[in-house]
Amino acid sequence: MVKKYKTIVLASGTFDLLHLGHVRFLEEAKKAGGENAELVVIVARDSTVKKRKRKKPIMPEDQRRALVESLRVVDEAILGWEDFSIEKVIERIKPDIIAVGHDQDGIEKEVQNAIKEKKISLEIAKIGRFGKQELDSSSKIVRKIIESVNK
Amino acid sequence: MVKKYKTIVLASGTFDLLHLGHVRFLEEAKKAGGENAELVVIVARDSTVKKRKRKKPIMPEDQRRALVESLRVVDEAILGWEDFSIEKVIERIKPDIIAVGHDQDGIEKEVQNAIKEKKISLEIAKIGRFGKQELDSSSKIVRKIIESVNK
Repeated sequence: MVKKYKTIVLASGTFDLLHLGHVRFLEEAKKAGGENAELVVIVARDSTVKKRKRKKPIMPEDQRRALVESLRVVDEAILGWEDFSIEKVIERIKPDIIAVGHDQDGIEKEVQNAIKEKKISLEIAKIGRFGKQELDSSSKIVRKIIESVNK
Repeated sequence: MVKKYKTIVLASGTFDLLHLGHVRFLEEAKKAGGENAELVVIVARDSTVKKRKRKKPIMPEDQRRALVESLRVVDEAILGWEDFSIEKVIERIKPDIIAVGHDQDGIEKEVQNAIKEKKISLEIAKIGRFGKQELDSSSKIVRKIIESVNK
């Protein structure tokens, strides 16, 4: 077997209203790949978010992608596909590790199913939640903005 | 004169609700320092923002600072001082260039005064506004969030 130089770690998410919780998640994801990790991030398309969460993100997909790619920890950020499926993602990116956040149980199940069905060797790195910081989620940020206006 | 290895570029701002406009501003600021530029960013304290803009930022200062420092283009991000003054900043950071954004006329004037009074050699790099992108300012983002809730 030829040893690959890089360990490809794949993470995904919406990354709407980028905050420190996102960055810490991505940093932990990359750490899971060790010293030679390359972190590829799939940023969900507006249409996919709308389908899955029933609401559109605040920031448009191109800006969410570009902002994620401007983070030091990220090697490459790409937009997802309209007909998003974990199998397709695995096929195209060929990750060694898929990082799954504390609020991504759905994705974790899909990855587990894909591993079973396709008999691929792939590690799942479960990333914990960080010390509950103020405003570490996009919905908390939205709530705070609305509260500050209604005051 | 001993030639310094690095060209220190200083940029400053609130960087509330980090967006692509911020990143492009910082990228252009660093470019102004050429190949050996080191970009130091002063992130305004909550108290300073409150005093200057009469409203507190949405995101707390520690998180704004940490998020700015997680950008690839930024070498160091530090919080401002309670008794903020451009003279003090210049004294401590000793920048070669101060980058000034399209909406930072006030800071530009203060820098010009400091240059005159202290007779220091310091370049001001005026950074233009970028192709008007959707949601390239924190207040536009706040407006969009409020609109989306009121719908």
